[in-house]
Amino acid sequence: MRVDGREASAISVLDRGLQYGDGLFETIACVDGRPRLLPAHLERLGAGCARLFLAVDLALVASEVRALAAGAARAVVKVLVTRGTALARGYAVSAEKATRITLRYPWPAENRSMAEEGVRVRLAQLRLGENPALAGLKHLNRLEQVLARAEWQDPSIHEALMFSSSGALVSGVSSNVFLVKDGALLTPRIERAGVRGVMRGCVMGLAREAGMAVTEAQLTARDLDAAQELFLTNALSGLLPVRELAGAARAVGPVSRALKTRLQAHLAQAGAQEVRRG
Amino acid sequence: MRVDGREASAISVLDRGLQYGDGLFETIACVDGRPRLLPAHLERLGAGCARLFLAVDLALVASEVRALAAGAARAVVKVLVTRGTALARGYAVSAEKATRITLRYPWPAENRSMAEEGVRVRLAQLRLGENPALAGLKHLNRLEQVLARAEWQDPSIHEALMFSSSGALVSGVSSNVFLVKDGALLTPRIERAGVRGVMRGCVMGLAREAGMAVTEAQLTARDLDAAQELFLTNALSGLLPVRELAGAARAVGPVSRALKTRLQAHLAQAGAQEVRRG
Repeated sequence: MRVDGREASAISVLDRGLQYGDGLFETIACVDGRPRLLPAHLERLGAGCARLFLAVDLALVASEVRALAAGAARAVVKVLVTRGTALARGYAVSAEKATRITLRYPWPAENRSMAEEGVRVRLAQLRLGENPALAGLKHLNRLEQVLARAEWQDPSIHEALMFSSSGALVSGVSSNVFLVKDGALLTPRIERAGVRGVMRGCVMGLAREAGMAVTEAQLTARDLDAAQELFLTNALSGLLPVRELAGAARAVGPVSRALKTRLQAHLAQAGAQEVRRG
Repeated sequence: MRVDGREASAISVLDRGLQYGDGLFETIACVDGRPRLLPAHLERLGAGCARLFLAVDLALVASEVRALAAGAARAVVKVLVTRGTALARGYAVSAEKATRITLRYPWPAENRSMAEEGVRVRLAQLRLGENPALAGLKHLNRLEQVLARAEWQDPSIHEALMFSSSGALVSGVSSNVFLVKDGALLTPRIERAGVRGVMRGCVMGLAREAGMAVTEAQLTARDLDAAQELFLTNALSGLLPVRELAGAARAVGPVSRALKTRLQAHLAQAGAQEVRRG
């Protein structure tokens, strides 16, 4: 792990990332020594930094991520960018210099049946607050996700779908969600809550390339009931069909399977491009 | 500054306080070598730890706060309690051991006219998300406050009042707010957003002791307009009358002045009790 490019395992207790969650992160899948969808991760990180007026050198982030990915068959690289160390107390932003942290974790234990046959999903009780100023950002304020994930212990349940305070479907705790209805793709708008997932954007692009209608919509629990297929997306696990929601069986259907095949081909091709670039 | 009781200025980059804002804090005024309203701070911290299922030794926190306060005429002690270091990635809570951090800061620059004549206050544009699961807690997810505080630079503006996504008046960025109407006291409920301020509770108790009606209510911008007096409360600054809101002059009235006098006497008395205890 590195802090501002130097080998380090600690940061100042005065860092505003700790004090206020004043920062952003990215979780990047690394396969065959290369970070996957790195340009999309950097684009989202850059957009987030602009919204939080954080100055960070994205080229430096990219080179550090590539260095951590190199040599690992499979690994997860996490990047954190915080406002930096503040000697003064209080919320006001001063002339702090952003802190850049890069970490490498082992790849999560594989579960092939999960990816092929689909995952079991519950509905979270906790509802997400709505805040347009923070929606879309992968920021460090994640207590809602911590509490939602603490609602279940059963390891056979993979994820929980979350609604916002006004009852809008938002996402999973750590994934985005898609509904298939009459051959078209629906996914919640990320206007008032939720994270603009990199894999979400990738799958939306691939579906449109395949000629599908893709709509970002205001969705509710009723839309979940009416959907013919459901799937989740996440930077690490790609596309995961849902085979059970809140105890009821759901069909793992042809649209999810076809998109998953397209996604796998796309990620392999993107990996090859990253080789030529690297 | 101390981490888990030992002199230290850094914490692990794997601490969930940094990774997710998974923790709580207290900001405690220390006067004449003693922490002010310490029992109330400890009570709120304990209640927050219970809601976030964090295990922390409050007696240890108390003794560390007292040690940091000792010898300082005026200082601010900040306590952070986080979920602790997690080797695994992801939101799921494991068997982490909570991290306890105590910091001492200098007392903010005094401004007597502010305390006596009242402060200038604006209205924040950013609206707070509503989440009953987090409301009341002084947790580490404070990006909303950071962004709201970044809305103004004018040093003569002391605070901004904030509304929630549904238009309810909540609080200042770093204070609670009270309205005086026909001799009674009104303050926003802390059910869906906001922090249950220690000074807020103290002032509510004193007002009731003085025979005033005190109501926690759902308030809106209209109630602000209709109020005869407005004041803010905060652990460091105590009670601050509002002399201007959103550019319009407000009367600093007799109720605010009388409560301020009562509060000063109470805090002096509480300090004397802390001496006998310490």
